[in-house]
Amino acid sequence: MVKEVIGKFLNEINSAKNFSFLLVIATTDVSLIPGLTIAGATPELTHFTPAADAEFLMLGKCKVINTVPVTPDGIPTPALISRASLSFLKISKTIVNAGSKITPNLPFIDLGGKPGGDIRKQSLDKSTAEKIIQNGIILGDELSNSYDLLVIGESIPAGTTTAMAVLEALGYNAIDKMSSASPNNPKELKSKIVKEALKDLPTSLIDKLAKVSDPMLLGVAGISIGFKGKILLAGGTQMCAAAAIIKEIENTKIHDIGIGTTKWIINDKTADIISLAKDLGVNLLYSDLDFSISKYEGIRVYEKGYVKEGVGAGGSSILAMLKANINNKDLVDKIDSMYSELLIR
Amino acid sequence: MVKEVIGKFLNEINSAKNFSFLLVIATTDVSLIPGLTIAGATPELTHFTPAADAEFLMLGKCKVINTVPVTPDGIPTPALISRASLSFLKISKTIVNAGSKITPNLPFIDLGGKPGGDIRKQSLDKSTAEKIIQNGIILGDELSNSYDLLVIGESIPAGTTTAMAVLEALGYNAIDKMSSASPNNPKELKSKIVKEALKDLPTSLIDKLAKVSDPMLLGVAGISIGFKGKILLAGGTQMCAAAAIIKEIENTKIHDIGIGTTKWIINDKTADIISLAKDLGVNLLYSDLDFSISKYEGIRVYEKGYVKEGVGAGGSSILAMLKANINNKDLVDKIDSMYSELLIR
Repeated sequence: MVKEVIGKFLNEINSAKNFSFLLVIATTDVSLIPGLTIAGATPELTHFTPAADAEFLMLGKCKVINTVPVTPDGIPTPALISRASLSFLKISKTIVNAGSKITPNLPFIDLGGKPGGDIRKQSLDKSTAEKIIQNGIILGDELSNSYDLLVIGESIPAGTTTAMAVLEALGYNAIDKMSSASPNNPKELKSKIVKEALKDLPTSLIDKLAKVSDPMLLGVAGISIGFKGKILLAGGTQMCAAAAIIKEIENTKIHDIGIGTTKWIINDKTADIISLAKDLGVNLLYSDLDFSISKYEGIRVYEKGYVKEGVGAGGSSILAMLKANINNKDLVDKIDSMYSELLIR
Repeated sequence: MVKEVIGKFLNEINSAKNFSFLLVIATTDVSLIPGLTIAGATPELTHFTPAADAEFLMLGKCKVINTVPVTPDGIPTPALISRASLSFLKISKTIVNAGSKITPNLPFIDLGGKPGGDIRKQSLDKSTAEKIIQNGIILGDELSNSYDLLVIGESIPAGTTTAMAVLEALGYNAIDKMSSASPNNPKELKSKIVKEALKDLPTSLIDKLAKVSDPMLLGVAGISIGFKGKILLAGGTQMCAAAAIIKEIENTKIHDIGIGTTKWIINDKTADIISLAKDLGVNLLYSDLDFSISKYEGIRVYEKGYVKEGVGAGGSSILAMLKANINNKDLVDKIDSMYSELLIR
């Protein structure tokens, strides 16, 4: 079931005729900071996660690593939810590389970006930041000829930290509102890193973004600005940062945008996506998933706050529920079946 | 007006509902051989031509070079015809890089290929050749979710020479049948290069292709094999080589394919696309363009056999005539208007 929190974006999705799914991937060196992210079995492996997520989403198997990305506890990537959801639909999926240390072994669109550095020093040079946005705009504009709705997911380890920095840099109060893939949100560490990153913040928008943004957020913002239809930003609190960049560059565009996420993000007591979305004036909706009925512990632990969102899981499940009329049980059965295939290998 | 030479592919285009245009670009070192190609003002500049063609097609201006690609005589790229044709349609254009020395400054899909070498030595290593085909198949398969017709153009200097080598390597008689962008087809030079390239030809298909094929042909073949709908190969005699590779890998696929070209290729007395298409059993059609009514000498010279085809000019004009109901005059007026803007700059 899909539930609406802010706005009327359900109508927009229901009336869309031609839709497509984009996964924007990137890495930064922020994910190498120990204790910050569980989007990979070790900090070093986090650089492989976006490419592996892209491969699993498209092909059902990973090439850059032997298994699907897992947390240090072995909990599988939310790409499983996205692949299962999209399997109910006739939809084309496109991988967009905004700047990744490791690139996937499949055809992908390149925005000409670079991996981000450590935001405590400098994430990107200004010309790269501009290029990612500009190429995103060209791509979004071109996709307008084929689609009236884009669903845009992301995969970038430590992305909630860079997103927090972007929101703060753009004047929002985000320090206490960002989710985490871990049930133990490392909020103190995140806020320490962000505060250090925001010291000596430059004044112009592009300089601010080059300093603290990750490449994914710039790519998602560019594509959304260039696209002429409606956009479902498929992600959690990170997508509030993408929405903030969009609003900064083209204020009225915010009305064409909805953030589509999962129940676990909405219910995350360590964060507050609803307050962020209200501050932005952006539509917000979520899929009311219940993984307690799964056969597998690795899936049931989502109910305990593990992983929560990512690789467009929320938006994909929203799309499948609205466009293929599936319910929670259909989806969990499909996820269980895909997961069982992974366990056999 | 669109005319059918072999088969009934006009019906297929007419009944297609969702179509998209792909431009597959690549370079090889064959274009550096003096006297072989006029797809660039000098042999060295030919390596910039595919990227510049891609930029002009998408953006209406070039970034990797200052002007649009021209022949040594200053005759502009056929990308002008393609951009003018596609401007009449609501169609998304995608650049696919199969292996180019210079890449365009815009978002493009990368097949993970490499630029080709000199086919007298070795064009590609085997694993790169395989990768281009495999990634092409993944891309084509994915595009099947959005489209029922793909129009695939190409830009690769000296591409008729590598195409000649591929056709001969696959057992076709092509030495006397390949067109040229020049009215003075350098047939002796081409055939000398091809004969040298075919010495000590390996026996397996993939080894043959790695030895003499350019990356573009492999990319086009892969995409076509993976795609589930109909494919209009938008090009001249080169596309016969793409069709030959497709047929070799998946024999029955040839019935889903049409080669869409221009009057100038069909009428080229130095070549014989009709005989090649008959040997392949592939559908063949062309747009009966007449550029004698253009205001500009640079456009009128197409009637003297200059350029003839490229960047999907034939297929794009076929599509515009069938799907937007435009005639020759509409198209020439649009080309003239775009050309005049180039002259002003």
